[in-house]
Amino acid sequence: MQPKTPSLFASPSVPTAAISPFDFTSDNAVGADPRILKALGECNEGSTTAYGFDELSVEVNRIYSALFEHEAFVFATPTGTAANGLAIGAITPTYGAVFCHEHAHIVTTECGAPEFYSSGARLVLLPGASHKISVNTLSDALKPYQMGNLHRLRATTLSLTQLTDVGTSYSADELGALAELARAAQIRVHMDGARFANALVHRSLSPAAMSWQAGIDVLSLGLTKNGGMDVDAVICFDAEIAGVLRYLHKRAGFLYSKMRFAAAQLRTYVAAGLWLENARRANSNARRLVAALLRCAGVRLEHEVQGNQLFVHIPPAITGALERGGFRLRPWPSPANDLFRLVGSFCDQEEKLARFERALEGICEP
Amino acid sequence: MQPKTPSLFASPSVPTAAISPFDFTSDNAVGADPRILKALGECNEGSTTAYGFDELSVEVNRIYSALFEHEAFVFATPTGTAANGLAIGAITPTYGAVFCHEHAHIVTTECGAPEFYSSGARLVLLPGASHKISVNTLSDALKPYQMGNLHRLRATTLSLTQLTDVGTSYSADELGALAELARAAQIRVHMDGARFANALVHRSLSPAAMSWQAGIDVLSLGLTKNGGMDVDAVICFDAEIAGVLRYLHKRAGFLYSKMRFAAAQLRTYVAAGLWLENARRANSNARRLVAALLRCAGVRLEHEVQGNQLFVHIPPAITGALERGGFRLRPWPSPANDLFRLVGSFCDQEEKLARFERALEGICEP
Amino acid sequence: MQPKTPSLFASPSVPTAAISPFDFTSDNAVGADPRILKALGECNEGSTTAYGFDELSVEVNRIYSALFEHEAFVFATPTGTAANGLAIGAITPTYGAVFCHEHAHIVTTECGAPEFYSSGARLVLLPGASHKISVNTLSDALKPYQMGNLHRLRATTLSLTQLTDVGTSYSADELGALAELARAAQIRVHMDGARFANALVHRSLSPAAMSWQAGIDVLSLGLTKNGGMDVDAVICFDAEIAGVLRYLHKRAGFLYSKMRFAAAQLRTYVAAGLWLENARRANSNARRLVAALLRCAGVRLEHEVQGNQLFVHIPPAITGALERGGFRLRPWPSPANDLFRLVGSFCDQEEKLARFERALEGICEP
Amino acid sequence: MQPKTPSLFASPSVPTAAISPFDFTSDNAVGADPRILKALGECNEGSTTAYGFDELSVEVNRIYSALFEHEAFVFATPTGTAANGLAIGAITPTYGAVFCHEHAHIVTTECGAPEFYSSGARLVLLPGASHKISVNTLSDALKPYQMGNLHRLRATTLSLTQLTDVGTSYSADELGALAELARAAQIRVHMDGARFANALVHRSLSPAAMSWQAGIDVLSLGLTKNGGMDVDAVICFDAEIAGVLRYLHKRAGFLYSKMRFAAAQLRTYVAAGLWLENARRANSNARRLVAALLRCAGVRLEHEVQGNQLFVHIPPAITGALERGGFRLRPWPSPANDLFRLVGSFCDQEEKLARFERALEGICEP
Repeated sequence: MQPKTPSLFASPSVPTAAISPFDFTSDNAVGADPRILKALGECNEGSTTAYGFDELSVEVNRIYSALFEHEAFVFATPTGTAANGLAIGAITPTYGAVFCHEHAHIVTTECGAPEFYSSGARLVLLPGASHKISVNTLSDALKPYQMGNLHRLRATTLSLTQLTDVGTSYSADELGALAELARAAQIRVHMDGARFANALVHRSLSPAAMSWQAGIDVLSLGLTKNGGMDVDAVICFDAEIAGVLRYLHKRAGFLYSKMRFAAAQLRTYVAAGLWLENARRANSNARRLVAALLRCAGVRLEHEVQGNQLFVHIPPAITGALERGGFRLRPWPSPANDLFRLVGSFCDQEEKLARFERALEGICEP
Repeated sequence: MQPKTPSLFASPSVPTAAISPFDFTSDNAVGADPRILKALGECNEGSTTAYGFDELSVEVNRIYSALFEHEAFVFATPTGTAANGLAIGAITPTYGAVFCHEHAHIVTTECGAPEFYSSGARLVLLPGASHKISVNTLSDALKPYQMGNLHRLRATTLSLTQLTDVGTSYSADELGALAELARAAQIRVHMDGARFANALVHRSLSPAAMSWQAGIDVLSLGLTKNGGMDVDAVICFDAEIAGVLRYLHKRAGFLYSKMRFAAAQLRTYVAAGLWLENARRANSNARRLVAALLRCAGVRLEHEVQGNQLFVHIPPAITGALERGGFRLRPWPSPANDLFRLVGSFCDQEEKLARFERALEGICEP
Repeated sequence: MQPKTPSLFASPSVPTAAISPFDFTSDNAVGADPRILKALGECNEGSTTAYGFDELSVEVNRIYSALFEHEAFVFATPTGTAANGLAIGAITPTYGAVFCHEHAHIVTTECGAPEFYSSGARLVLLPGASHKISVNTLSDALKPYQMGNLHRLRATTLSLTQLTDVGTSYSADELGALAELARAAQIRVHMDGARFANALVHRSLSPAAMSWQAGIDVLSLGLTKNGGMDVDAVICFDAEIAGVLRYLHKRAGFLYSKMRFAAAQLRTYVAAGLWLENARRANSNARRLVAALLRCAGVRLEHEVQGNQLFVHIPPAITGALERGGFRLRPWPSPANDLFRLVGSFCDQEEKLARFERALEGICEP
Repeated sequence: MQPKTPSLFASPSVPTAAISPFDFTSDNAVGADPRILKALGECNEGSTTAYGFDELSVEVNRIYSALFEHEAFVFATPTGTAANGLAIGAITPTYGAVFCHEHAHIVTTECGAPEFYSSGARLVLLPGASHKISVNTLSDALKPYQMGNLHRLRATTLSLTQLTDVGTSYSADELGALAELARAAQIRVHMDGARFANALVHRSLSPAAMSWQAGIDVLSLGLTKNGGMDVDAVICFDAEIAGVLRYLHKRAGFLYSKMRFAAAQLRTYVAAGLWLENARRANSNARRLVAALLRCAGVRLEHEVQGNQLFVHIPPAITGALERGGFRLRPWPSPANDLFRLVGSFCDQEEKLARFERALEGICEP
């Protein structure tokens, strides 16, 4: 039986790809950290209670509470979309308005997960340079939503992305000022931390300083882009919200029966600093890519690089040569069609980076 | 920081459990098949496109289409609850009524996943011996839902469980008769196949005969209880339903970025007959448990054993002795408090079974 | 243009009906009380602010607060289904379980309004004689929903119907005991009072005693069956719930722009005792119907008559003669097909009742 | 009992208003047309079947089918918000994207009704002069939503407003071009016709030409602003969509038990041309207001007047004098705080208009 539809998720516009050794398109393009894989094997033996009642799952809450210096409730999910949907759903009533940047990941690439998990809330899209929301923008946007105005939805939620999707980040002060404004308006704050670790090491902040101390109620913590194997998590700092999350998480189908495998990943990810080590390498690799590219005439950055992602204008002569050399970059929409995303990954090895540098030297040398 | 809440999913009524070698409580209590784990390692190298555009993910649709002798659309999920929710949500409008057995898994242990994924449908609970629905029962239940009756919801969906939660199964004829009745009433049919493989080998049917040939539109296929590592799947036999599933699956957060790891499991699970081999062993192990138990005076089966689960009345003297010997059984609600569930697992080894048999001999010998 | 579909809401099984003077099928079959119609005309002149900011709408909250001896928040709706849906939606999260009688109106004839307004909650159906729930039944049903059990939904809501759909009613003590049990389990209590006035006069209770003093958080108050013109209301006794209701009510489309017309009905309904007068007449008319029927051999009541509805077994010879005489009764499902509903209405006149009595005398005399 | 909350829907920012004879703020500020009130009284006598099975309700489908020259399914609602929510909900799956103008009524003043009735769809906000969407704007907006792109929602719905909220209107050609583009993308088209009649008489089009002939699948028809008493309607031109609407309409609580009262209004509204007569008078009154205002120095229109609404910049000296004279205008947000909305109403009498003209003469004369 030959199916007419060739793929699980085939799109007419995206070609199916074979494995490539010189791919810089995404931090999702690579596999898992070998230490994560090893942890899966190590917890495989023997029987234990299903659905998160095993000892390893219990331990995870202790580990993350210590790490964040605050009681933390950890809910494992298979993707960042699931984590964002759950987190926003837990703090947003069906009639809630969720303020977020107009280009946030929850707007552009999650197929309405926040609307689904909140059963009908609305995203209110805010402008802002480098994908960041300013206090003034938020303050203006909130005005028509004052309590008593029935004709709009109720302003209940702020969602911030750290790193943003263009690789920029908020300082602790910027986060704090936004959260303070939100708090005054009785608005809960979510952080989409798909690249939380990359922002953390760039900003040299503690996990606490970049989350609950800055006013974040509930955090989507990404593991997958930084070494995990299809596990992310919601980290919740509020017992009442956690009481809602328990039901949403189960009901949506995220209460893994063999929870030990998610728990093993969550433990290994932070236990011996793996997450920070990987994020540092990814950020450092990104800086090498930047440095190599900026040596070429006509190359310029679109956004400041504050993590592992770069958005770079590159003349077509250079990108053409790179592609012929087997390198994969991700074209990004732009007026001149010369913008590309490159992502530094924890698992890029010296050889891959050096080959990229040598290729650029060959292409760009005068 | 010592959290007040000790566990991810702690319940006051369920104790946290350490790993045990003599657990018969659930087929979720064990780990993954080593061949599944090995497949994860083997697909880890190199970069490829995320979100299911990699070659391995594409191959999975081909494999399952061949296996089921029908074009099949495969949607990986982290749990059976997710698979059931998605599948039912894709064939049930918000105003739909879902007919199912009153003790079905979707009723008792999925926290309202069908209601969530359908955004507000209703489960209509039907009685039936051994957790099975009869044609007469369904026919009577449909009467008040005739088209034109606006005051009830619209009858849109039938959900059958194969194996049922008490280990019984439908014959191909029984499935076909129910599906025919449904079809005549313009009702779509879902099968919760968390233990599909166990039913398949017990009934000696082909995958096609026990699914689309019997009138099933969409199947939840369980891997996890039979060797998978927290991966199940929706198998859809209808292109229009698949067109809905694509959006629901993405929107709920199930479109794994590193889809290769789910795809590797799905391929390995069926490629060389692993699933049938494991299901045969689980069923055979269950029969050994039955045989050993029935040699004891006072032991009797509550339901016929048609797969890997047994529900057995056991006198307290015997269960007490078993527990002291380190064996774990799952107590099940019953008037005399003497009912227990035991589950045969693919990974139970000769030693575990032999030790159980010897223990019973010691307890029950005259 | 002759439409193929003859009616707004045509059903193959219900014939379209012309106006009839001798209809006893429903308290919805009659028109509105002339005093209600008059009030509509009296408030029609001049311009005022729309959406409930007019003086008349403001006055309504004061009137109902005085009537119920408690701060009351009044939300007008076009139907009882809307009132029930809104009220239950305001006290039930998406993952909530709503305990109610298996034959309650919200179960059998509202097309899933509670599921819709709660965005996916589940009704848990309880048995009980004469459509009433007992404390023991509720207590048993709550057991599997203890906090910490994630696998079921969360028990959040109790919905009671007063009068029940078979015309029986709860005493204040019965209501109080159920509400106390609910309160102990952190469950909110809703009353479907489509026939609240009929129960009130039958039980000789004050509005307060039959609502918040008995533990009711939110009440659906029916006007339509008792003289209103397609206006019912949610009466809420809790400011926090009212804060949710404001949004749900607006969002669902119930914030009438010309709210004065709903407010005028709500004021007129209770202002000079119209509601109690009408309910007394309806109940009294029902008792006359009972008395006339019970004089016939073979007639017997199915349920005690505690309001304006009677459910009566009537031999076919009698019903045939009544129908030939132009009287309309509503057949009700029963094993012997001899059960009928008759409803006493506030607007049934002496002539209609006397003619029914005379007709029965002619049919039944020995 | 004196309630702390003074109003049903009190807002801190909107004062409660007494009846005023000189109010131009809204076409919702006035009462109902006396002929509508009369029709309510005329259908009040006698008993008939509830829930739309009465003869009058059946007749309404015939009347509107003839009026629109196409089989039409009519669903009465209490508000335009309800009609819009229902209509959009019936053509939009939970994962649908609804394209609409960024200042459409469904965006700014319906508290998320489209999200509620679709159970989680998203509004995609389009810019456009005078609140109108151009074909180019829609065409560009659709590009990222091509079939196969899973990461956005699915483009399913276009909602157009006729008259727009600033009183402008689409020509039949403009509507047709938008609908043709939508159709090509498999998108259903809704029209918010809260002021359908005002647009109809301004454009001199037939009901058919401005609805289904221009590609509209489902229409929200406003009665309330043009003489109705809190009744609007969904007019559906497609039997399959009507099959969904039946359930949504009942489930949301809009199936009036005494449907005759909604049906009487729907019949009276169009039977003898009442709707066109009222719309002509409202539009004509608006032109008189324009003419009077434009004779004053410093007054200028913000938008072309194509119906009964005017948005006018008025110097503060003039508005101050008007307010002191007892006239009510609605301030509208604008940079210079000099923008006001005035609305011409069907029930404004010669005296009111003449007094306004005389007042302006007194204020503005040189």
